[in-house]
Amino acid sequence: MSRNNEQTLRVIGIGPGGARQITLEAVDAIAATDVFLMLDKGDRTSELTAVRTRMLDAHARPDHRVVVVPDPPRDRNPDDYEAEVRRWHAARVDALDSALDEHLPDGGSAGILVWGDPALYDSTLRITDRLVERRGDLAIEVIPGVTSASALTAAHGIVAHGVGEPITTTTGRRLASTPEGADRNQIVMLDSSLAFRETASPDDIVYWAAYVGTEHQILVSGRVGDVTDEIVAKRAHARERLGWIMDIYLLRKLG
Amino acid sequence: MSRNNEQTLRVIGIGPGGARQITLEAVDAIAATDVFLMLDKGDRTSELTAVRTRMLDAHARPDHRVVVVPDPPRDRNPDDYEAEVRRWHAARVDALDSALDEHLPDGGSAGILVWGDPALYDSTLRITDRLVERRGDLAIEVIPGVTSASALTAAHGIVAHGVGEPITTTTGRRLASTPEGADRNQIVMLDSSLAFRETASPDDIVYWAAYVGTEHQILVSGRVGDVTDEIVAKRAHARERLGWIMDIYLLRKLG
Ligand SMILES: C[S@@+](CC[C@H](N)C(=O)[O-])C[C@H]1O[C@@H](n2cnc3c(N)ncnc32)[C@H](O)[C@@H]1O
Ligand SMILES: C[S@@+](CC[C@H](N)C(=O)[O-])C[C@H]1O[C@@H](n2cnc3c(N)ncnc32)[C@H](O)[C@@H]1O
Repeated sequence: MSRNNEQTLRVIGIGPGGARQITLEAVDAIAATDVFLMLDKGDRTSELTAVRTRMLDAHARPDHRVVVVPDPPRDRNPDDYEAEVRRWHAARVDALDSALDEHLPDGGSAGILVWGDPALYDSTLRITDRLVERRGDLAIEVIPGVTSASALTAAHGIVAHGVGEPITTTTGRRLASTPEGADRNQIVMLDSSLAFRETASPDDIVYWAAYVGTEHQILVSGRVGDVTDEIVAKRAHARERLGWIMDIYLLRKLG
Repeated sequence: MSRNNEQTLRVIGIGPGGARQITLEAVDAIAATDVFLMLDKGDRTSELTAVRTRMLDAHARPDHRVVVVPDPPRDRNPDDYEAEVRRWHAARVDALDSALDEHLPDGGSAGILVWGDPALYDSTLRITDRLVERRGDLAIEVIPGVTSASALTAAHGIVAHGVGEPITTTTGRRLASTPEGADRNQIVMLDSSLAFRETASPDDIVYWAAYVGTEHQILVSGRVGDVTDEIVAKRAHARERLGWIMDIYLLRKLG
């Protein structure tokens, strides 16, 4: 229930893609929400939009509304990466700000469904922070979700690290800058170029998964020297066939 | 359904403690399981056992069975940490092996409920790996769960890292060995001595949470120089009052 025109914005982690990998808390949050804001990223990720739509069909109130907030265009290979990310975030803040004005004029709750967990390589919370600065009346609730890293390790049936060891979680872009001593167990996301081919030694072990937790799931694991070609081939083939890919891997040094 | 005396052992992540932070997939797995093996760690963590019992009451079949497998004693301050961990794991393998013989003589499914996600600072999968070596007929299924790290960041409403940055996940024991360049965003678990007091600079930011996701949740965040005393005091007080504590924090370098 909203007092006056108080607004709540729920940032809801829905897990890494499997329909049943969502928590009961996220199901409750979806069922309590009036309007869902879908940040539309265009065709490239239309299958991701389909997953979100299925989540709403399964768990949202019959009278829920869905508002597509067109995602501002983004330069994926800018000269200045951080400046471009900032510019893009600002344009997204404007778009959400207008959407809240238009669709919750009398208060109530809006929800954004976030892939995996909202704390990991997702910009939604950076945007909602800035929305809160603009709109004093906006309360944010964050619902954690299963990460794609947990789905990866579960699918391979492994612990993410040797006994008591640390883990580095990083991106393809940053993989080569992991300092020595922090590279025993690395979980690598957002890596469209399989950067481990440049950084790993042939005796390292790689646990790779694409579309983990979904019907399309593909798993490959083994010595980097043995399985790299198989990963490259399966990745290219799956991407060609489905038109998109999401993959993640754990890189482990032994000995 | 089991063929002959085929056995399935489900390692089920139940999330970091909140009754609703379990996934639908974990709920399904609990509902499909005949016998639950509870690795009993004695009084110290009886509240953790209570959480597991509530999960079973809510989601397991009415005719499910619960078998307490007494946890072998463990030296928490051994001279040789890794040797002691190995010895302790071996004793746990023996205990589970006997429990499966005794309680699933004709096949069926057993389940172990694991706190948070099974891939993170939990030894269950190391033990089940060794059970599989002994028992050719044992199939393992792993269900990922929300980690306490995700619950921590959600409770504070934050992303775990600056834009595109890596994260180190480590333990109190290892915190001081994080290499330079890997210490911008550190998630620290299993730290009963609040090791950041020795490693952090006063201008670092700490996001601390105890009992996150549960009714007892306590949050503190701010500059290390400003909030360390508050964390020490709140931690000691809560531990005294409840008789146990589980806490975690994110340490961030700015600038
Ligand atoms: C923008 S990040 C979002 C991560 C998400 N917040 C999480 O907690 O997993 C997207 C990256 O996550 C990884 N990812 C997400 N879902 C995945 C899945 N089902 N299978 C494989 N990788 C996945 C991929 O590395 C992908 O490039
Ligand atoms: C043995 S590890 C298990 C971690 C678990 N597998 C996970 O995914 O979170 C136990 C440590 O997890 C952290 N932890 C687990 N649950 C927690 C909670 N509800 N609140 C705070 N910390 C928690 C604490 O750092 C604790 O020392």
